[in-house]
Amino acid sequence: MSTPGRFLVFEGIDGCGKSTQVARVAQQRGAIATHEMGGTPLGAELRQLILGSGDAPVPMAEALMIAADRAQHIAAVIEPALSIGTDVISDRHVASTIAYQGYGRGLPLEDLLILIDLATNGRRPDLTVLLDVPVSVSLTRRGKNPDRMEQQDAEFFERVREGYLAQAKADPATWVVIDAQLPLGEVTRLVDQALKERGL
Amino acid sequence: MSTPGRFLVFEGIDGCGKSTQVARVAQQRGAIATHEMGGTPLGAELRQLILGSGDAPVPMAEALMIAADRAQHIAAVIEPALSIGTDVISDRHVASTIAYQGYGRGLPLEDLLILIDLATNGRRPDLTVLLDVPVSVSLTRRGKNPDRMEQQDAEFFERVREGYLAQAKADPATWVVIDAQLPLGEVTRLVDQALKERGL
Repeated sequence: MSTPGRFLVFEGIDGCGKSTQVARVAQQRGAIATHEMGGTPLGAELRQLILGSGDAPVPMAEALMIAADRAQHIAAVIEPALSIGTDVISDRHVASTIAYQGYGRGLPLEDLLILIDLATNGRRPDLTVLLDVPVSVSLTRRGKNPDRMEQQDAEFFERVREGYLAQAKADPATWVVIDAQLPLGEVTRLVDQALKERGL
Repeated sequence: MSTPGRFLVFEGIDGCGKSTQVARVAQQRGAIATHEMGGTPLGAELRQLILGSGDAPVPMAEALMIAADRAQHIAAVIEPALSIGTDVISDRHVASTIAYQGYGRGLPLEDLLILIDLATNGRRPDLTVLLDVPVSVSLTRRGKNPDRMEQQDAEFFERVREGYLAQAKADPATWVVIDAQLPLGEVTRLVDQALKERGL
């Protein structure tokens, strides 16, 4: 039996540089780079329903669809890789649900924690790296044609950022916060240092 | 403030005659006729992902998507109608989740009850009418091109039928079981009698 793989997650509001670090760290480790929502063919369809321009889900329907995306992602991508010793690096995971659907949309955190448990069957990241940027920076880095989530106002994203920081503060053993306004080379150095310090 | 509408649900395996009774009772009462899954535009998209030929959801993802369909249905169709005194007659509702995802797929009933509570915010039908037919009858009444659920084997549907009967037996105050092998006119008479006896 091989050693199980490591499960590392990058989180943060849009424009914080998650996708760059996910791709880099995955390549460095020979790991699978993946993302939520949309890390499976089913998930990509769900993502389109959640973020696209069709019938908007009510907040609880959105949370349930995101949990469905995650259940499929865990079962079809994350667990199979970890079980054969392959590391998995994900752009977003459960912390985004607490930040966006909890702090952002205002759904009760206890309901969301239940959905997270059902979707993940208890699997949690070995480390979650929060790439923290002010909302004003995120908004200037945003592309054209914002999706349904990106169309939320600045106060929504202030709450989302607060939701990430609160989770990081509550669980320093499995979270690292990195100032993502620093130059890319410095962010990269801090990410690698955090992984090394924790034996990951 | 008007009297809230009544919420009546017809349940049973495919081919039991639910859609006929839903349409008839709705017309008789000036009620809204609706259905799960797919009673909203978002729900219709989710239904296609669940039953269509694409990437098959794992059982928990399926249950979460069905709960999302229900949360949207409750918020966008059922509660608004009931709140203005309009009756709602639905072809399937929460009992199908217990029967199909619980007894059929084998998911823990306690997990499904949690999802049902999150999706419905506690709303329950005033009456659930189970139109009971043997699985052999259901199979002969089935159309061509069965969807992903209809492709399950006879043992799956035996468990689903058992799941319906167990729920009806456990809660006779809000359930009626009608032998749907009887002639249509007799089924209709028994449905109307059940509603009348319960003051519905």
